[in-house]
Amino acid sequence: MAQPGGPLSQLRRGHEELVLELLRKHGPLNRGELGKHCGLSRTTLYDILTELVADGAVVAAGQQDAPRGRGRPAETLTLNPDAGQAIGIDFARRGLHVAAVNLAHEIVGTASEPHAADLPWEQRAELAVSLIGSLTGAGTGTLRLGALSAIGVGVVGPVGTIEDDLGEPVEQDVRPGQEPTPHPVQVLLRERFGVPVLLDNNTRLAALGEAIWGAAAGGGDVLYLRLSHGVGGGLVVGGSLHRGAYGLSGEFGHITVDPDGAPCDCGGTGCLETIASIRSVLDAYRGAGGRADGLPDLVKAVDAGDRTAERLLAGVGDSIGAVLAAVCNAIGPSVIVIGGELAEIGTALMEPIERTLSAHVMPVTRHRVSLRRATLGEVAGALGGIALVLHESPLLSRYPAGPDLAPGLAQTSQQEDPPMNQSRQS
Amino acid sequence: MAQPGGPLSQLRRGHEELVLELLRKHGPLNRGELGKHCGLSRTTLYDILTELVADGAVVAAGQQDAPRGRGRPAETLTLNPDAGQAIGIDFARRGLHVAAVNLAHEIVGTASEPHAADLPWEQRAELAVSLIGSLTGAGTGTLRLGALSAIGVGVVGPVGTIEDDLGEPVEQDVRPGQEPTPHPVQVLLRERFGVPVLLDNNTRLAALGEAIWGAAAGGGDVLYLRLSHGVGGGLVVGGSLHRGAYGLSGEFGHITVDPDGAPCDCGGTGCLETIASIRSVLDAYRGAGGRADGLPDLVKAVDAGDRTAERLLAGVGDSIGAVLAAVCNAIGPSVIVIGGELAEIGTALMEPIERTLSAHVMPVTRHRVSLRRATLGEVAGALGGIALVLHESPLLSRYPAGPDLAPGLAQTSQQEDPPMNQSRQS
Repeated sequence: MAQPGGPLSQLRRGHEELVLELLRKHGPLNRGELGKHCGLSRTTLYDILTELVADGAVVAAGQQDAPRGRGRPAETLTLNPDAGQAIGIDFARRGLHVAAVNLAHEIVGTASEPHAADLPWEQRAELAVSLIGSLTGAGTGTLRLGALSAIGVGVVGPVGTIEDDLGEPVEQDVRPGQEPTPHPVQVLLRERFGVPVLLDNNTRLAALGEAIWGAAAGGGDVLYLRLSHGVGGGLVVGGSLHRGAYGLSGEFGHITVDPDGAPCDCGGTGCLETIASIRSVLDAYRGAGGRADGLPDLVKAVDAGDRTAERLLAGVGDSIGAVLAAVCNAIGPSVIVIGGELAEIGTALMEPIERTLSAHVMPVTRHRVSLRRATLGEVAGALGGIALVLHESPLLSRYPAGPDLAPGLAQTSQQEDPPMNQSRQS
Repeated sequence: MAQPGGPLSQLRRGHEELVLELLRKHGPLNRGELGKHCGLSRTTLYDILTELVADGAVVAAGQQDAPRGRGRPAETLTLNPDAGQAIGIDFARRGLHVAAVNLAHEIVGTASEPHAADLPWEQRAELAVSLIGSLTGAGTGTLRLGALSAIGVGVVGPVGTIEDDLGEPVEQDVRPGQEPTPHPVQVLLRERFGVPVLLDNNTRLAALGEAIWGAAAGGGDVLYLRLSHGVGGGLVVGGSLHRGAYGLSGEFGHITVDPDGAPCDCGGTGCLETIASIRSVLDAYRGAGGRADGLPDLVKAVDAGDRTAERLLAGVGDSIGAVLAAVCNAIGPSVIVIGGELAEIGTALMEPIERTLSAHVMPVTRHRVSLRRATLGEVAGALGGIALVLHESPLLSRYPAGPDLAPGLAQTSQQEDPPMNQSRQS
């Protein structure tokens, strides 16, 4: 792969992406067909193909193991199903999740690994590298990274342009091109893989993941709510994450539900998180006389018809539904996705959410918005990292140049790193 | 002006806009300087200038009255301060407001005229034409429309892509290029002026107006709340209106404040509008023993230190602040603008709004969001219509082609009509 940098390498990367896009769209093509479609000179095409074969991005059709050598590619060429184009990593609080897509934009694998909450970034990065190494390609089983474009990374906490007047430093407030000091994990991964590393909040990336690959795929504007140890979420508008003026968009967990309620970690009072986080729900259940060491016990109680649990969850669902309705009226999404461990409780929670949402949302909107459970599970954030690279990154937004060649992608070009090439989700 | 249509007229319109942009940026230039900057051939530039002079778009510097005739433009050319480039019209329920900008993107005038709520569209359009005719240019006093690019129009009610399953037809759900039948006022104005007519909800346009020209100019993501006969608003994200999946974004007035509250016109219960509309506030004031025939009486009472009015407005402000805080936590704006007649009450309402907003918004956001009163008054929607044309319209987004020449404008290209040329707000 050409190194990112000056205009010439960008041009070359653009030509490469053009060839890859043709193979993505048409399937296997021979050199003559490629030449006809891409409009490059014979010499340029020869150089590009030689490099793509050497990188392991392109192989002879039916012979996807080893390329035949630089000078003699096979007549019919195809994308190597083992060649990773983008990697997503979710650095969650107590574990990490990775996912990769190949050049055909197929998900080739995901993996997760728990770790202690205080694991240093160096060790987290090593663990990520090792997990990525465990992913297998769709072809022969070895994921090749010679044609890797970029890595999309999710971290806990706000990510955006946050000024210095916070009182305390916010470690994760960095996006390439906007802030002088990158996040430590960006530095570590960039050193290791030699490609750009894009950063966003991991819950927002889960929202993007569900919007692009999961419960809301193809669904337009998406409101994603995650009910986990914390309560958060994200908004996807026109296929792109909405970040807000300070990287603090999607803080649904800190919308006030009860002004006279419990103090919240955020410093507020009676936030949704004080009612609908895993800990809050378990505390309330125990306070009402229920017995549960953890969420699985509560789920069992619900399944067994425990009325205390049902009443409690009806109240929790009511609060969640009211918050969702307010946000719905404000932004008019077409799909609401509920993710996080609490969503796995199922009907006992989803039904009261839906009831209150329906009661409080504008009647004209009521039948327009679809409430769904998340489908991607714990790898949603990692898949969102890939979506960030393929759908949002200006890294991949300079080639092909025209709106005809890149419909819908010209909209998001405000962040990050040196521009490279255009890629599309097929 | 070249008629919109095929590629050749688009190209010509592009050349015209290039010349206009050079004059906008550099001020008066002679033909040699123009030729050097624009890179057009001498013949092409001659043709373009001839047409611009004939249209009244360009005049000899210092001689801004009448152009000298087609073949013999003066040596130093400048934009005609009397030449309108864009018109904005707000077709409000009981009156209409117009505004115009010239080719230098200076507001040359605004005008308003009340009318009966049931005035037919034909007569509203005639009234709009007559009001536009009353606007005077910045130079000699006669606004010329030979170089008009487009008209941005605001109407009451939802505007967007609304499906047919509504039960009743929504008259204003049309945007050019998306729906087969344009709004009647679009047809009437297009026939009259021969330029594209862009449509959006008038409250959303007021939001855009305040974000671009008014209280939140240069302020990033903006949340606009309008407290009038109804309660509504709009969100401006990255300089563009957020419309939502069904054109129903910004319905802050229908966020539930009191689930046991009064029935709302929307079919819901206890919406903010049942508490914070002009009628709701006056009804509550009278119910508490106050005397007011209209809003001015309430304002007088407040100014005179009437405690009943103060207590009532404290409660109303509290409800408004709570809704704003919820939306703030969801979308993270940098500026909140309060508009509409009720905002004119001033401190007695703004102070409790600010207090509750501050109490309910995430503490980390508290000092990042700025609460302001609207500054554009009743012409906000008309000015928003102009902003729609100059900032958002893909009509003006095809030329110059590259992102270098049109920073920030490549983001919004999802709506409307045949593409023409690029223009920028200076």
